[in-house]
Order: sequence, then structure tokens, then C-alpha cells
Amino acid sequence: MDEKIEQAETSNEGGGRRARGEGRGAAARRASRSGGGPGPSLPYVQRKIPVYEVLDEDGLQLIERNAETVLEEIGIEFRDDAEALALWREAGADVKGERVHFPRGLCRELLKTAPKEFTWHARNPERSVRIGGNATVFAPVYGPPFVRDLDGQRRYATIEDFRNFVKLAYMAPSMHSSGGTVCEPVDVPVNKRHLDMVYSHIKYSDKPFMGSVTAPERAEDTVAMAKLVFGDDFVENNCVTLNLINANSPMVFDETMLGALKVYARHNQASVVSPFILSGAMSPVTVVGTLTQILAEVLAGASFTQLIRKGSPVLFGTFAASISMQSGAPTFGTPEPSLVSYGAAQLARRLGLPFRTGGSLCGSKVPDAQAAHESAATLNMTLLAGTNFVLHAAGWLEGGLVSSYEKFMIDQDQLGMMQKMAMGIDFSADGQAMDAIREVGPGSHYLGCSHTQANFQTAFYRSPLTDNNSFEQWEIEGEKRIEQRANALCRTWLEHYEAPPLDPAIDQALLDYIQKRKDSMPDAFT
Amino acid sequence: MDEKIEQAETSNEGGGRRARGEGRGAAARRASRSGGGPGPSLPYVQRKIPVYEVLDEDGLQLIERNAETVLEEIGIEFRDDAEALALWREAGADVKGERVHFPRGLCRELLKTAPKEFTWHARNPERSVRIGGNATVFAPVYGPPFVRDLDGQRRYATIEDFRNFVKLAYMAPSMHSSGGTVCEPVDVPVNKRHLDMVYSHIKYSDKPFMGSVTAPERAEDTVAMAKLVFGDDFVENNCVTLNLINANSPMVFDETMLGALKVYARHNQASVVSPFILSGAMSPVTVVGTLTQILAEVLAGASFTQLIRKGSPVLFGTFAASISMQSGAPTFGTPEPSLVSYGAAQLARRLGLPFRTGGSLCGSKVPDAQAAHESAATLNMTLLAGTNFVLHAAGWLEGGLVSSYEKFMIDQDQLGMMQKMAMGIDFSADGQAMDAIREVGPGSHYLGCSHTQANFQTAFYRSPLTDNNSFEQWEIEGEKRIEQRANALCRTWLEHYEAPPLDPAIDQALLDYIQKRKDSMPDAFT
Repeated sequence: MDEKIEQAETSNEGGGRRARGEGRGAAARRASRSGGGPGPSLPYVQRKIPVYEVLDEDGLQLIERNAETVLEEIGIEFRDDAEALALWREAGADVKGERVHFPRGLCRELLKTAPKEFTWHARNPERSVRIGGNATVFAPVYGPPFVRDLDGQRRYATIEDFRNFVKLAYMAPSMHSSGGTVCEPVDVPVNKRHLDMVYSHIKYSDKPFMGSVTAPERAEDTVAMAKLVFGDDFVENNCVTLNLINANSPMVFDETMLGALKVYARHNQASVVSPFILSGAMSPVTVVGTLTQILAEVLAGASFTQLIRKGSPVLFGTFAASISMQSGAPTFGTPEPSLVSYGAAQLARRLGLPFRTGGSLCGSKVPDAQAAHESAATLNMTLLAGTNFVLHAAGWLEGGLVSSYEKFMIDQDQLGMMQKMAMGIDFSADGQAMDAIREVGPGSHYLGCSHTQANFQTAFYRSPLTDNNSFEQWEIEGEKRIEQRANALCRTWLEHYEAPPLDPAIDQALLDYIQKRKDSMPDAFT
Repeated sequence: MDEKIEQAETSNEGGGRRARGEGRGAAARRASRSGGGPGPSLPYVQRKIPVYEVLDEDGLQLIERNAETVLEEIGIEFRDDAEALALWREAGADVKGERVHFPRGLCRELLKTAPKEFTWHARNPERSVRIGGNATVFAPVYGPPFVRDLDGQRRYATIEDFRNFVKLAYMAPSMHSSGGTVCEPVDVPVNKRHLDMVYSHIKYSDKPFMGSVTAPERAEDTVAMAKLVFGDDFVENNCVTLNLINANSPMVFDETMLGALKVYARHNQASVVSPFILSGAMSPVTVVGTLTQILAEVLAGASFTQLIRKGSPVLFGTFAASISMQSGAPTFGTPEPSLVSYGAAQLARRLGLPFRTGGSLCGSKVPDAQAAHESAATLNMTLLAGTNFVLHAAGWLEGGLVSSYEKFMIDQDQLGMMQKMAMGIDFSADGQAMDAIREVGPGSHYLGCSHTQANFQTAFYRSPLTDNNSFEQWEIEGEKRIEQRANALCRTWLEHYEAPPLDPAIDQALLDYIQKRKDSMPDAFT
């Protein structure tokens, strides 16, 4: 797998337009030496632990049969997109109005041309990641219009917040992607916003980033800007953006999402086709019913990418939560959506598509124990399910309405734990530690033994945030809660941030492109 | 499995000494009707989801071989217990001083007489639980000398706190056991304390309880009091107490623990033989090294119960945490102990012993996001590992130094989620929900559909503590964090507590026994 990335990088570097530089490693080492920055960025997770599977063969086949029944009998709507309907008719589907009915097996057959795994390229080749197989890639929160800032204020997000979250994701060792809409910069006109967002990802990070999906022309802008960085040919032949295409569940794809999907698929960029499910509202209240609908929606939406361009990368996405049956409010980290996500991961593997689910989801308004329990329930599940792309892995608060600086820091620490967990178990002679057991013997301790001394740097994950001191020490240090420590660490990181190098000619070309595009548009705030 | 419990109960009720009464269900329904109490208690978890396994066959065999090497070559110390050494010599072990060296396979052979599963009887037959197989039983925190009370004070625990935690465990729907030392009542002399503790479990709860292990005579008192409740014959032939026998890791069993173990095994009561491991101090810093030592210690300690009484119930216990390599302080909820516990569960299943690990462990001083993340990491693992007995499932704070009321409430809510998760997936026609998908169709919603209406009461776990309201509603309600809601709910529960019925004659017999025993002892506070 690593070999594939190296090959791709080599061919890219031959293209000659990629920004060169010392890379993330050196900058992080500098920051770390100066005492306040995080450790170096880690490569994407390569899971060495097994996946956890909740469905057996009979259950999987039943859901697959039922999903085909949904596709055939009920159908999926492709709204306000004559081209899509024509393409489906041509592919052999039965189109009635905007409702597409699929012959059993058609979608699954079309998906055979989609790649099982692919490389998502970063402008710094060291930061490129694999999507699929045993790889897991963490990406930050996506979409919130609000932030909870370091002064404890809940307010609308700005482009400054956006840049800050890009910087934090760049610095977080176990964050493998710069993400997409890390928050909505509502101080920038809505029709121009995407330009500043894409630029921020390129300028302030060198990790792989996501493209704009809110209109086809914004998707085109994303591709155009990516070409200024990676070169035209490279972009047309490789994945440099991953793009979130939500289904309008139940069983609808709308014009906006289809428009963005088509742009990205034509340029060989990856679509993450994700039913957005609050069970009880957008899907049935049962696990099997929800999985059936998710599979049907993904089959329809993902196979559509192959009608646009065979071989274009596409992910099986799932956003699963429930609603409170009392208030109708979304709930997160509860058992039922976990079972849904575990099952969806299995369905994706059988379909041969990389799988996306979230993430450190929660409904809490503050980064308290509720936020942590809900996030942990989601994140532990995400790792064990064998998820390949984990959106909302850090910073998500309040049902996704808020990007929280403090929660980002707490979550990214948990991502480090997940990454360590995924490394699995060392069965070497050193891992077996028989000599250590012999050296220490009954009634003694391992604190100073030679095996402990030799391994203590790497033995255990080290959290920069958890407090394990004595009560008395904790008292002396001001009885701080973890969010207070997270606040302080976040300020330190932002102080120590250093931008990754970017070729000044590329930087200028991007700025010129943005200016030209902005000049062509009126300001629009809605 | 349920049948076995019913049979056992019948034979017990024939004995005629068990307390009768309306049972927990009726009391809970009354409390619930009055508006403040929890829902009814649930039976122990019967897992319908698969276990998660991190070790393959080769890995398991390697650890088993290495553990036999530890037992044979290094040996295990049985300290200050001539009887134990004599029994081992008689069983064929090579005893040098206090060091016992075991021929390969001896311990495993001895353990063939230990039951794979058994019933742990409660004085209310409805509350009896199975230990082993696909059963999971949650029990509260064990051991803290301090409490963090409902006024936010951290102080020494009292017998009043002890009673409160027994009451809370009795009321918590997904707490299946009353536990043991839910906190140390330090206002009672240390040599008399166990009498009040055992009495509180019997008086204020009707869930199964744990016995005293701090001295052989205290274990004898536990058995004697249990006999007043269950009858002599019943106790000698059935498990009515589960007892925590910690190894003095590495590779030592001390006089105190051996003394208690011998008493309980002679009376057919269950021992939970638990290496207490902070990796890096009591075991090597590696997962495989730690598992090897744990297996060796359990093999020696658990098989010793069979030398005392063949067929007496015994659990494979594991308490796994790590230490900070900077400060030496214990750390909880980190990845490496999770891998240890997953592996230990597999080793226990291969040995044919029920498995114990914990629980909602954390190092935090307050029930903040650190506490929750660490607890969730431990608890999710515990469930998926297939743990049979989960000690410290609620209330544990500050590395086990503190029993926290607020954290107990937060944790017990998580236990409810675990229990719902373990129920697995419904594949019935209702679960498949095809009619619902047909009824709703593309672009509509499931909120009011007939399937949702029919299932909404049971579809999703309902948390009494999480807040999922709008931000504005949360603001109006005082911007409460989850621990504030937990505090209020805890007060309400304690106000609504009603004791389960206890035969006055048994109650008096217990009080008389306690008085007689206390009168025979001086007060001792150390």
C-alpha cells in the first residue's frame, strides 16, 4: 500500500508543479523543540487490529435483498437533474418522472469499476493518505455555522476561526486530513466563501483537503485551484479532493448534490455518498430498516458516479444518529446508531467500497462528560468498524452546530489513542518480555528493569491533556478540568503554529484566481 | 440458562428461609409512578452481539506456552500460608521455600473441575444472575476511602455514604449487583466495618452482593450472615457471594487474600482471582508480556480454589491499567490496557472460566470529559470483550480513591446504553421495516408513520441525563452540565428510595449476630 503511494508521488513530482519544502516533520520538530507545539504528524492509521462485525452472512444477505427491493420497487428520486435521469434511462433503469427504479443488481454491477482503494494526495507527499483497505484517515468537524471560542463565547464562525481550525488540524499529530468546512466563515459572502476556504486549506496546511459541494461552480473552482497546486494532468488522473455528497434521505438526491458529484466525478475526484440519517425521521426506527435504506441510497448515488466517469473514486458514506422520541431532537452516541454503523461498514466491504462514518459526535452544548461519552461511543465504534474515512473526528459540539476549540483539542488526543490502539499487539521477543518477567520475579516491580527502560518511550500513549497526578498536586495546580487544560494547550499550539512552505508562485496564482473570481460575483450572504 | 436459575431458586425456596416479598419490580413501579424514581431493574445482560477478539490462535497459544514457562521456571509465591504450600506439594508442584513451581499443564488440569457458568443468588430470586457464558453482570465501584458528595465535597466516606451507594445500585436499572465495598465506611472501626457493610447490602438491596476479603474471620462472618438469609444448606451448595481475591502482582499471593479465598472456596462461594496490574509497575510494559503474567497468576490462584474444594466457582479476573512513564502515576482508559483486557477475555474463554474486568475506570478528579473518555474507553471494551462480571461499573473516580455520586449516576446511564447495545439486532419483519419504507417513500419523513408510532417506546435507549434540547432551551434551563443534572437526579432517587421487603425475623437475626460479634471485639481503626 505504501508502495502505491510512493509510486504515485514519484509520478506527481515528475509533473513538477507540486510545492516542495521541508515538509511537516521538520516544522513540527522545530515547534516541539521550542516547547509548546505538538509532536510530529503521524501517517494515516494502518489498522493491525481486527474489525468488529455485528451482522452474520444471513443478515447481510437479507439486507442486501431488501435494499434491491427498495431500489426496484420504491425507487430513488434524482431531482431537478434531467441529465441524471437520461443517464439512468440509458443504463437500463426504469425512470418514472424523477423516480428511478433500478433492475436488481444494476447498481452493484456498475460499482465494479469503482476502485476498492486509492490514494488521496496532499500537496506534501508525506501527508498523502490511502482511502480503503486497512487504512483509517481522520478529518476534523465539517459544517458548523457557530464556534465556541477560547474565551467561552458561542458565536458565528469567521474566516479567522476557519484558519485556526485548519492550523490546529495541521498540527494535530493524529489528524490526517485538513478536512473541508471546518466551520462556516459567515463573515465572507456565501457565494465567495468556498474560495477562501479552499485557499486556507492549501495555504495553512499541507494535509489533504476536501472540496466545496454547495454548487457545481464552486466544485469547479475547487478543481481549478487544485490544478494550480498539483498541475492539470495530475488532478485529472489522481484524487486530490474528497467531497461530501449527502443524500437527502429518505431516497432523494437533489440538484445541488448531484451537480457537485458530477463535477468531481468528471475530474476523477472522490465522492463520499452519505445518507444523512437521523433514525426515526429520515429512516425507520430499527437497525435493519435503516441499514436497508442506507444501502439502497448508497447503491444508487455511488453507482451514479460510475455513469459519469468509470473508475472515479467513490466512498460508501453513512451518517447515523437517532432522534429523541420525546422531543424529536437528534441524539448522538447512543447504541442503535452504533449498530447501524458497524453494519454499514460490513455492507461497504462486501460492496468493495471504502467506508466513511463519523467521528466524535455529540449533542452536548459544552465539552463535558456528556460530550465525551457520546463522542467516545461514536469514535470507538468508528475505529473497530474498520472505517476508512472518519469525518467529524474532532471539534464537533452541539449536534454539529458548533465547532469547539476546546473539544477539538480533547478529541484529537483521543484520536492519538485510537491510532495507538490500531497498531495492535507486538509478538516479538521484546513484546513477549519473558526476560523482563525473569529479571523481576515475584514480589518486585518493573519500574526500573532493563526492559522497561528500553521501552518506556514508546510503551504507552502519552496524553498531553489528561491529569493523572495526585489529588494534592491537582489541587495546587488550580483544580483544572480537562477543558481548561485543552484551552491552554490550544492557545499554545496556535502561538507556535508555523505555516508549511508553499511555492510563492503557486500562492500568487491562487490569490490571482480568487481575486478574478470574486470580482466576477456580487456579494451574497444568503 | 434462565431455566437453571429457576431450578436453583425453587430448591432454595424449598429451604424456606429466604426473605419473601413483592420484589424489586413493584417497588420500582411505585417509585416511578411517583415521578422521581428510575424505571424497573433489568435482568443481567444476555449478550446477543459477538465478542471482539484481538488475538489469533497462534498468539493465544504463544501466551499460553509462555505462561506455563513462567509457572514452571519462575514460579508463584504463596506467602505465609503453610497449608497452601502443603496442598501444592501434594498436588504435584515443586515447592521451594514459598515459591511454587508448577509442572506444565497442572493448573489447567486442576481447573477442569471449576464450573464454566453458575448462578449468583440474590435474596430476591428475580435478581439472581448468571456468571459466565453470554451473561454480563454490572457491579458498582469497589474500594474507595473517599467520596465526592452531592455538595461537591471530597471527604472520607462514612457508613451513610455506603448505604447511599447501596441504595443507588439497588435503584439503577442496569446495575445487576449490589457490589461489595462501594466505599470504605471509615467512621466504623476497621475490624467491625465488614459487618455493617454486609448488613447494608442485605437490608437496603435485594441484588446479589460481594463478601469481605480483608481477613479470614471477616469472610467467615460474611458466610454466617448469608446463612441467616439463605439458610445453611443453600449457602453450602450455591453461590450467594462473589469475592474479590487480588493477586499481589507480580507473581505473589499473600496471606490475607489466601485466607479469604480458602474460607469462600470451602463454603462453595465464588472467588474472583484478579491480578491487579498497572503495566510498567506490576507487569512488563508490553501487552503480550502482561497477558503472560496475568495468565500465569490466574492459573495458579484460580486452580488453588479447586485444591480447597473441587467444583467451587472461580473467575478469571483482570484489573489492567498502565502507569505514566513520566510520573509513575496510574493512567486509565488508554489503549494498551484495553488490548490486555480483550486478550485476557479470550484466554479466560479458552480456560473455561467466567471473566471479570472493569468497569468505568478513570484518573480524573472530577466527572469531566477526561473521566468520561477514560470510563467510556474501558466500558466499551468491557462489553465487547464479552466480560461476565464488571466491577467498578459505576461511581469510580480519581483512580479508585473516590466514590462519586455524580459519576455513579452518569455511569449507570451508560450501563443502560451498554445493555441496549448488547440486545443486538432485530431481524423480524418489524425490524426489517419494509412496510415503513414503502409507506414513507422518497422525500417524506418517518416521524408519524405507523411503524414509528408502534415502536417508539422501545426503539431507542432513553437517557435520563443527556441534554439534546436546542441551545436556546438549554440556556433558559440554566446552561447545566451533565454532572449538575446527575446531581439533581441522584437527590431525587435517594428521596424516592424504598427498601425492598426483608423478613423481620431475618433482619433481627442479622442484627443480633452483628451485635454479638461487635461485642467480642475491641474498636480498631487501623
